[in-house]
Amino acid sequence: MANTDVSGLTQLGSHVDLPTSPEEAKLERVPHTHEGERYVVRFTSPEFTSLCPLTGQPDFAHLMIDYVPRKWLVESKSLKLFLGSFRNHGAFHEDCSVMIGKRIADLLDPEWLRIGAYWYPRGGIPIDVFWATGPEPEGIWIPEQGVPPYRGRG
Amino acid sequence: MANTDVSGLTQLGSHVDLPTSPEEAKLERVPHTHEGERYVVRFTSPEFTSLCPLTGQPDFAHLMIDYVPRKWLVESKSLKLFLGSFRNHGAFHEDCSVMIGKRIADLLDPEWLRIGAYWYPRGGIPIDVFWATGPEPEGIWIPEQGVPPYRGRG
Amino acid sequence: MANTDVSGLTQLGSHVDLPTSPEEAKLERVPHTHEGERYVVRFTSPEFTSLCPLTGQPDFAHLMIDYVPRKWLVESKSLKLFLGSFRNHGAFHEDCSVMIGKRIADLLDPEWLRIGAYWYPRGGIPIDVFWATGPEPEGIWIPEQGVPPYRGRG
Amino acid sequence: MANTDVSGLTQLGSHVDLPTSPEEAKLERVPHTHEGERYVVRFTSPEFTSLCPLTGQPDFAHLMIDYVPRKWLVESKSLKLFLGSFRNHGAFHEDCSVMIGKRIADLLDPEWLRIGAYWYPRGGIPIDVFWATGPEPEGIWIPEQGVPPYRGRG
Amino acid sequence: MANTDVSGLTQLGSHVDLPTSPEEAKLERVPHTHEGERYVVRFTSPEFTSLCPLTGQPDFAHLMIDYVPRKWLVESKSLKLFLGSFRNHGAFHEDCSVMIGKRIADLLDPEWLRIGAYWYPRGGIPIDVFWATGPEPEGIWIPEQGVPPYRGRG
Amino acid sequence: MANTDVSGLTQLGSHVDLPTSPEEAKLERVPHTHEGERYVVRFTSPEFTSLCPLTGQPDFAHLMIDYVPRKWLVESKSLKLFLGSFRNHGAFHEDCSVMIGKRIADLLDPEWLRIGAYWYPRGGIPIDVFWATGPEPEGIWIPEQGVPPYRGRG
Amino acid sequence: MANTDVSGLTQLGSHVDLPTSPEEAKLERVPHTHEGERYVVRFTSPEFTSLCPLTGQPDFAHLMIDYVPRKWLVESKSLKLFLGSFRNHGAFHEDCSVMIGKRIADLLDPEWLRIGAYWYPRGGIPIDVFWATGPEPEGIWIPEQGVPPYRGRG
Amino acid sequence: MANTDVSGLTQLGSHVDLPTSPEEAKLERVPHTHEGERYVVRFTSPEFTSLCPLTGQPDFAHLMIDYVPRKWLVESKSLKLFLGSFRNHGAFHEDCSVMIGKRIADLLDPEWLRIGAYWYPRGGIPIDVFWATGPEPEGIWIPEQGVPPYRGRG
Amino acid sequence: MANTDVSGLTQLGSHVDLPTSPEEAKLERVPHTHEGERYVVRFTSPEFTSLCPLTGQPDFAHLMIDYVPRKWLVESKSLKLFLGSFRNHGAFHEDCSVMIGKRIADLLDPEWLRIGAYWYPRGGIPIDVFWATGPEPEGIWIPEQGVPPYRGRG
Amino acid sequence: MANTDVSGLTQLGSHVDLPTSPEEAKLERVPHTHEGERYVVRFTSPEFTSLCPLTGQPDFAHLMIDYVPRKWLVESKSLKLFLGSFRNHGAFHEDCSVMIGKRIADLLDPEWLRIGAYWYPRGGIPIDVFWATGPEPEGIWIPEQGVPPYRGRG
Ligand SMILES: [Ca+2]
Ligand SMILES: [Ca+2]
Ligand SMILES: [Ca+2]
Ligand SMILES: [Ca+2]
Ligand SMILES: [Ca+2]
Ligand SMILES: [Ca+2]
Ligand SMILES: [Ca+2]
Ligand SMILES: [Ca+2]
Ligand SMILES: [Ca+2]
Ligand SMILES: [Ca+2]
Ligand SMILES: [Ca+2]
Ligand SMILES: [Ca+2]
Ligand SMILES: [Ca+2]
Ligand SMILES: [Ca+2]
Ligand SMILES: [Ca+2]
Ligand SMILES: [Ca+2]
Repeated sequence: MANTDVSGLTQLGSHVDLPTSPEEAKLERVPHTHEGERYVVRFTSPEFTSLCPLTGQPDFAHLMIDYVPRKWLVESKSLKLFLGSFRNHGAFHEDCSVMIGKRIADLLDPEWLRIGAYWYPRGGIPIDVFWATGPEPEGIWIPEQGVPPYRGRG
Repeated sequence: MANTDVSGLTQLGSHVDLPTSPEEAKLERVPHTHEGERYVVRFTSPEFTSLCPLTGQPDFAHLMIDYVPRKWLVESKSLKLFLGSFRNHGAFHEDCSVMIGKRIADLLDPEWLRIGAYWYPRGGIPIDVFWATGPEPEGIWIPEQGVPPYRGRG
Repeated sequence: MANTDVSGLTQLGSHVDLPTSPEEAKLERVPHTHEGERYVVRFTSPEFTSLCPLTGQPDFAHLMIDYVPRKWLVESKSLKLFLGSFRNHGAFHEDCSVMIGKRIADLLDPEWLRIGAYWYPRGGIPIDVFWATGPEPEGIWIPEQGVPPYRGRG
Repeated sequence: MANTDVSGLTQLGSHVDLPTSPEEAKLERVPHTHEGERYVVRFTSPEFTSLCPLTGQPDFAHLMIDYVPRKWLVESKSLKLFLGSFRNHGAFHEDCSVMIGKRIADLLDPEWLRIGAYWYPRGGIPIDVFWATGPEPEGIWIPEQGVPPYRGRG
Repeated sequence: MANTDVSGLTQLGSHVDLPTSPEEAKLERVPHTHEGERYVVRFTSPEFTSLCPLTGQPDFAHLMIDYVPRKWLVESKSLKLFLGSFRNHGAFHEDCSVMIGKRIADLLDPEWLRIGAYWYPRGGIPIDVFWATGPEPEGIWIPEQGVPPYRGRG
Repeated sequence: MANTDVSGLTQLGSHVDLPTSPEEAKLERVPHTHEGERYVVRFTSPEFTSLCPLTGQPDFAHLMIDYVPRKWLVESKSLKLFLGSFRNHGAFHEDCSVMIGKRIADLLDPEWLRIGAYWYPRGGIPIDVFWATGPEPEGIWIPEQGVPPYRGRG
Repeated sequence: MANTDVSGLTQLGSHVDLPTSPEEAKLERVPHTHEGERYVVRFTSPEFTSLCPLTGQPDFAHLMIDYVPRKWLVESKSLKLFLGSFRNHGAFHEDCSVMIGKRIADLLDPEWLRIGAYWYPRGGIPIDVFWATGPEPEGIWIPEQGVPPYRGRG
Repeated sequence: MANTDVSGLTQLGSHVDLPTSPEEAKLERVPHTHEGERYVVRFTSPEFTSLCPLTGQPDFAHLMIDYVPRKWLVESKSLKLFLGSFRNHGAFHEDCSVMIGKRIADLLDPEWLRIGAYWYPRGGIPIDVFWATGPEPEGIWIPEQGVPPYRGRG
Repeated sequence: MANTDVSGLTQLGSHVDLPTSPEEAKLERVPHTHEGERYVVRFTSPEFTSLCPLTGQPDFAHLMIDYVPRKWLVESKSLKLFLGSFRNHGAFHEDCSVMIGKRIADLLDPEWLRIGAYWYPRGGIPIDVFWATGPEPEGIWIPEQGVPPYRGRG
Repeated sequence: MANTDVSGLTQLGSHVDLPTSPEEAKLERVPHTHEGERYVVRFTSPEFTSLCPLTGQPDFAHLMIDYVPRKWLVESKSLKLFLGSFRNHGAFHEDCSVMIGKRIADLLDPEWLRIGAYWYPRGGIPIDVFWATGPEPEGIWIPEQGVPPYRGRG
């Protein structure tokens, strides 16, 4: 059985309402039981939505987050709630994508982290944002995210 | 060698400027050399564009046209020019799609004709229009058009 | 230029805030300029989201709506706002899908209407709902919706 | 908010251990709030596993279940637990697939129900089972399941 | 070992030069050893090429031929040579497709035969031709040809 | 646990050498424990190979077999050995495909059986054979086999 | 809420007619709120069209633009209008593609920018153009554009 | 015939019950007959399942394991049994993935080994783990694993 | 409007018969208007055919040509005619592929050029040839050609 | 016409029986007419089959072979016969794959050669082998083989 200490967590295993904003959301971490191992953990969220800061209309994105842990892993339920907390939050695509990456990186202090944000088209033109804390670390296996390019119809 | 009489055509084999409107476009026909055979001719045009009648912004569509000829075939260069003539024409999606279908059907008096118009998304929601001159004729092979459903990103 | 009368519309062409509930949303219609033509109009929305009525957590769905108009077409901006109004609304998958279909059918009195609702997986198992106002009408071309089956990973 | 009465359910909203056999699993139902509407509900489970009755080795399948409800809907958490209860149960592919279909049909008394069971290959040859309670009902929209055929490698 | 009598064949098993025209090509047949069985034989040729009768430029097509044999099967080497004989032959798309179908049908006197000719785009618009000797026969399994629709780029 | 009586089987559960010819292969059956249920069992074999009866060179095919059982199911290990027994057997494509279908049908006396044989290309042109014991039975769910059409390169 | 200063913009949030030429189009920029972060912003436009400079016939392309911002981001509405302004502009494929890349690069003074222009086929042969301001910068994550290769038919 | 010495194996060629835990599972190795050759052996297992350590509910993953052998190859039947032994074992995704990689690496002492673990979504968000014993070795061909990214629905 | 000088061209804009051999074909070039820019131009031709030098039977290939221009661009109509001129030319796959690459490289004196030739299968085994004038130049964006691997059937 | 000297070949252009073992097979070579050019030749064989050395049951694999010739090219008919000669040969997957690579490399003395062997699943787990004569040579274009990962069902 895994020896992950989850005693400090406040949300896992109980009902938690969706946070009403990213500021309110409590992103949590658990100790990394394989400290010293350098490898990649990937989260994929095709269920991200926020609001346009100018019009208040919904925006949608497909997010992929890769990181190389040091002492901490992100607790996945808190990550889900954090991403859900953008539901009624307004932000531009570039800003929002970078903000999510930075917030997780601040919590985890990982060796490296990146986020690929694949936004649904507006005006026929989708925007993708590819942000990382720094260059790809050497000597670690980091697969491509592999999201196919947008295509209109046909 | 095919015995198609193309002597009445005014555009095939010479340079023709893009017509400036559907009204100006000259859709032409050639005699059907296999009259009596009941079968389907399909044209696919992923290069259709018109304008939004309210905003003047460009719209794009992927068009597929199927018909069962009687005495006439559509001359393909004139079809290309006709479709190109919508380039600076404003029309709603539903209206424009039906109009194209009717115009070709009027020219050819086919046994049957249909048009599938797969419009690029606006506001995150594409519109498809599926119009036909009448029910599928019996005893003829009419394959599905098979355009895959729209998908946002990811 | 299309002769669609849009004079009665209250939302098209101006800024409209996202309605806060389906009840508040104003679904609008425009006269059908090709009345008598029997054909299919399809809307695809990969950007639908609502809330779980038990937990308040976000749900996501890919929606496809097909209908055969009689006297009215649905106005597409109002449809987008209507679908967006479920953003903070709680409903079970089956109930929500049927509700959307009925609301649009009530407005348009179409010859026929169907909705395919392809919900994102919960507990590893997605639910799809396939609802229609009645049997497929005869003599009309109605392509398959063609959404591929869910697949876990790999 | 949906008016589904969930008061009789014993498993939804609380922790339930995985049942140790299909016999022990408690498949539950909820009242159908749109009684009289004839439409299809589809469940897809790519996470099915059972044991080979001869060797005790694990078998895997991708399941798709379609039904037309009458008075009852299957409660989805109980369905998930029911499917999970085959984890340590031994049965041949044909038998197991039909058994699942019948058990759900017995509970719901649906107008119609079918199950497609797409088993992973053994000896290079996968088995699919396509079972239904009876012929496809008339006048209802029932999309194909659309699982692509097995292909070896390359 | 199969009891097909190939004694009357003139091309199988020896070197044969590519015929220089469809007229010169010798399409051959072999006796059908399962006479009385009603089923479909399908040939797929992605390697068809002919010339444009107006310009002499090469045209390309992907051909699929389905038939229900009566007393004869087409000998496949002669079919390959027959299709190859169009290499320097000029014909319009519709005419050429129908001509191939008729020639094979004349030779075999099959219960039914169809040809799907999927031509490469010219002027951005490909033409498909779907011809058959008559309605699909009853009580026989005839799968769709399933060629995906043309798509420009992206 | 399934109540399938396997006592009469001679090959299941023990080592059996690959039969050296279809004649030598012992195709076996097991009692159908759901007799009276009308449904489809599908086997897919991408691992079929035989020899060309003229040249002795290897041929390859992708086989799909669907049947509606009456009193018997085919025992899958014996099916695998039967298909493997064509490894050094020479037969034409049409003949070999029909022969396999008939042999299984003779053993099982099923309500209905069909075989789709998708042969690898020779001379650039693959042959598919679609054979069935008779028309598709009414009132049973029989999905398409869905093998994509052959495509050369690119 | 994002702190992007959009006060200097002249087109965002109001109706703007499609510019009649690239020269007339006003490409605008907004301050980069994460200056110092080195990452990629990608725009995908499957809706690009211009005219052939020799014949005046329409050309179509699928465009993908990647850049690493320094002080400025391109304002996306102005980008859409800029790309739309080529609608009645004549240019060769290679020239047009490079021109678009240079124009955006001149405005933004980015650390790096590239454009992939995937033109629809003419004469059966599409042209792709892959242009960049210079070598890929080190230490930044730049995914492949991943547009699939052109394929004729079948 | 291969000269692999399998005399020390205890499970190959005889019936072995599924081990009840990873600790009980006996992972075995065979001598590498091409010692000195530096190349990659890849195992793909889409049939992995374990239990959630908190709730006891089943988890599913698609595993891919690559290694460069030195003196030993992993015996594939013992690998299958080892992976099957997680069936009733509880572990977090990150921990479980790394544990499998380490266990095989300890047995084989390979030049290099990596595991890609692609877990089925929970809460809408799948986790992937990419672990390796160290940097990719130089001068060896190591293809990407190429698992496509998770996509919700539609 | 593009300032490409096409005054020296002999084939563009007029009818030209298909050359009867590669020797006869006149491959032409136009001045590169962005001299000094280092970028890639890609041509894709799924319509290539030649003859087998031993048997005279047709061969087919899908060609992709990438180059980094210096002073010249290849004129695309002459390229099309050049490729078409192999129609009745006999050459082995490896030889023919390299010959095409060299001929274009000789004309253009590009910084770099490569050709990928993906031949249709013969004897069940396709040959691909990947030739380049030299190593990939540094500091230029050169996407993969991305042609999928050949797969027989199924 | 190609100047390849094929005078020393013993199998090309005449009927040759399938060799009964790899030892008996005569792998042949032809002079490389572009000696000095460094490029890649790729063979793809989805039609490989051998026997399991323990059970005698058939195994199947999809093979891809890449090499950089020096003085010799492999003669493709002899390659086909060599691969076919494994039909009744027993060997383990790893051993068989390396053996094929070495045998061809010994004959050709190429600058570099690799083989990717993608075996069909046994026990639910396919094995891939990726072997090369040495590190990828510098300055040569060597595309990925691009075989997609195995996926069970669904
Ligand atoms: Ca940073
Ligand atoms: Ca009508
Ligand atoms: Ca239909
Ligand atoms: Ca109703
Ligand atoms: Ca029944
Ligand atoms: Ca159906
Ligand atoms: Ca007829
Ligand atoms: Ca059908
Ligand atoms: Ca019969
Ligand atoms: Ca530059
Ligand atoms: Ca890369
Ligand atoms: Ca380590
Ligand atoms: Ca790599
Ligand atoms: Ca060179
Ligand atoms: Ca070596
Ligand atoms: Ca590369």
